[in-house]
Amino acid sequence: MAHTAEIIAVGTEILLGNIANTDAQFLSQALNSIGVNVFYHTVVGDNPERLRQALNIARQRADIILTTGGLGPTYDDLTKQTICEVFGRPLVLHPELEEAIRTYYESNLHRRMPANNLQQAMLPENCTIFHNAVGTAPGCAFEEGGVHVLMLPGPPHECRTMTERCAIPYLRALSSEVLVSHDIMTFGIGESAVEEMLHDKMVVMTNPTLATYAKPAEALVRATAKAATLEEAETMLAPVVEEVVSALGSFVYGVDVASLPERCFRLLKEQGLTLATAESCTGGQLGQWITAIPGSSAVYRGGVVSYWTEVKASVLGVPQETLDTYGAVSAETARAMAEGVRKLTGADVALSVTGVAGPDSDDRGNPVGTVFVGLAAPDGTFCRSLQLGKRRRDLVRHNACNHAFDALRRYLTGLDPETLSAK
Amino acid sequence: MAHTAEIIAVGTEILLGNIANTDAQFLSQALNSIGVNVFYHTVVGDNPERLRQALNIARQRADIILTTGGLGPTYDDLTKQTICEVFGRPLVLHPELEEAIRTYYESNLHRRMPANNLQQAMLPENCTIFHNAVGTAPGCAFEEGGVHVLMLPGPPHECRTMTERCAIPYLRALSSEVLVSHDIMTFGIGESAVEEMLHDKMVVMTNPTLATYAKPAEALVRATAKAATLEEAETMLAPVVEEVVSALGSFVYGVDVASLPERCFRLLKEQGLTLATAESCTGGQLGQWITAIPGSSAVYRGGVVSYWTEVKASVLGVPQETLDTYGAVSAETARAMAEGVRKLTGADVALSVTGVAGPDSDDRGNPVGTVFVGLAAPDGTFCRSLQLGKRRRDLVRHNACNHAFDALRRYLTGLDPETLSAK
Repeated sequence: MAHTAEIIAVGTEILLGNIANTDAQFLSQALNSIGVNVFYHTVVGDNPERLRQALNIARQRADIILTTGGLGPTYDDLTKQTICEVFGRPLVLHPELEEAIRTYYESNLHRRMPANNLQQAMLPENCTIFHNAVGTAPGCAFEEGGVHVLMLPGPPHECRTMTERCAIPYLRALSSEVLVSHDIMTFGIGESAVEEMLHDKMVVMTNPTLATYAKPAEALVRATAKAATLEEAETMLAPVVEEVVSALGSFVYGVDVASLPERCFRLLKEQGLTLATAESCTGGQLGQWITAIPGSSAVYRGGVVSYWTEVKASVLGVPQETLDTYGAVSAETARAMAEGVRKLTGADVALSVTGVAGPDSDDRGNPVGTVFVGLAAPDGTFCRSLQLGKRRRDLVRHNACNHAFDALRRYLTGLDPETLSAK
Repeated sequence: MAHTAEIIAVGTEILLGNIANTDAQFLSQALNSIGVNVFYHTVVGDNPERLRQALNIARQRADIILTTGGLGPTYDDLTKQTICEVFGRPLVLHPELEEAIRTYYESNLHRRMPANNLQQAMLPENCTIFHNAVGTAPGCAFEEGGVHVLMLPGPPHECRTMTERCAIPYLRALSSEVLVSHDIMTFGIGESAVEEMLHDKMVVMTNPTLATYAKPAEALVRATAKAATLEEAETMLAPVVEEVVSALGSFVYGVDVASLPERCFRLLKEQGLTLATAESCTGGQLGQWITAIPGSSAVYRGGVVSYWTEVKASVLGVPQETLDTYGAVSAETARAMAEGVRKLTGADVALSVTGVAGPDSDDRGNPVGTVFVGLAAPDGTFCRSLQLGKRRRDLVRHNACNHAFDALRRYLTGLDPETLSAK
């Protein structure tokens, strides 16, 4: 039987708009990935009466209720008390928790536990305790009248860690089946085109299933199988993943890879190559993306942000004639930028981006969204010419960076870096 | 009388965790800013039965219901039909809308309106139409039995634009009072320290009010006044803003400014100065932030990402002796990086960042969070030395960038860029 979940976030800061409810997003992904349907998200403030009402509504329409937030030691943290009241469970002191919290204070925070933190050692009677590996507030789970209630902390890092380590194993144990997914990541083909290509397959499949999801300027296909064991699920998935990968061809940049920069990082590392970047309209974003990956210094030497045309000439050595004849936003300049930074840093391969991010056209009349991606390598220099459309500045830049890493990915896997095709 | 609002997002993609409910965050900010209390957020999928239930719950606990999403032309867009059913309003064709949508297709998208888009011209009878300036799906508002229902599109850009242009004016008109806020932006002092400094004032004030909010590594103080007219509200706010600014001293980097880079951009522009950046652990993020601002080419020349030590020496000209003696993560290297990029690009001022972003300490044993920010200017070179704590890689980098721009902001306003103080 499929379970139905509701996620209740407790926190006035969400209702004030100070933060987005990212805990609910993460939890929804995690729950869907193990086959639990999420039918509602609710957000209430730090107000016991409104939380009580929300819990009473939720227990009628869901058999799994997950709460986030309100587990802290201060007076406005009321989640536990209110849940215990609604579900008729006494709130009792768990001595082993008191010890754990005291130890966390003394060894991680190097100070004594404040008295009001003792409150955090209070949990419902006969519950499964979820230890907090990265904070002090423990979570827990219990079952009452056929409804499972799981309480998780609000800070995203704590919520995430506890979900992975405690909540997901707890929920998996409710079912005798396992659900396994693999994500086939594509770039350069829209979600609707992917869907069209796989449509005939998707409609007839029931287990495994295929679903498509759009990420900004990307699309992913998730293949999911339900089986009695992990091994069985994997055996069912292997041919399906293979079939999708072969249908989508080189639009696929990886299976279960987080992003194009991540894929490039691994390819560079495997091949023992180093990278440099030269950026104009993206202003440092290529570098920022690759260095967001821990360990990126193994492959990334550095780069130049040549925002002014003078810097393109003086630092990167783009010939003045190229700049005068073709302009700063041109295939010729993109090539020269990539070649220049490759030479300057001694990297094996180099990426460059020059373009018009907007909001206005450039002085040569190139419209917003005109972007050139250069790639310089030992065996030559390549250029991808793009019209990304008149969009918001951040979207043009985001998409330009993805194209640059896609050109690199295609180059490193023996494909033509200049064109987007399934071949 | 204060109004009470509930925001209902309609969209299975939120329940799948594909996107966060950022519409609700933006709407909550907008509603709170005009004095409307938001007591609940609800998310339901593209399912008419569950939406019906959510609407029936909402109309009992809120007098303003805002929905986002489900206004598109496809079969799973059911918001309008379901709302009309629940509130007993017929759904009718608005001929002027049909014309507007047809024109939008022909002049913006250069193609004929698909037949199913006619559905978007159907809205409840006798409603206030909200025209969509950046998409095709119109929104609307009506009142039924004391409850105001506002329907907004789901795509964040459309939701935002329609909220600002249509929903907020509609809601403002419900009240005879205006609510005006000013945000006093601070950096370098925690939210709790700000609160402590202003506590005595905050507890006794009723109109205007003061509230503090935490942004990542920043804090802002919002002063809000309620009055019969805009002018009256501004007159009430002026002395309060002045008092807060004077209490928090130079921790305040601006009033109603979006961010530290934005403030620096304006200062540079006013003073006719240009900037360059040299980055190690931030990998391009300083450049990325400043170039995210439209028009930044007026002040930003460019920069170098010297991720490898060799690049610090060869491109930026950091003396090998400095690198050997003090290491790549040191005040001396930070200073030399800033001086080097200033010379290389011809900029008036230059910022540099070198540090350990983690997850591991560097080879000299500098712990994660060790960061040096350099600033080179015509009258000398400065350095801010920081221990940002053993945090997540992205947080260390984010905080390092903020410190760099804060050093620049302090320098450009005649303060000591090296230290964080109220003076």
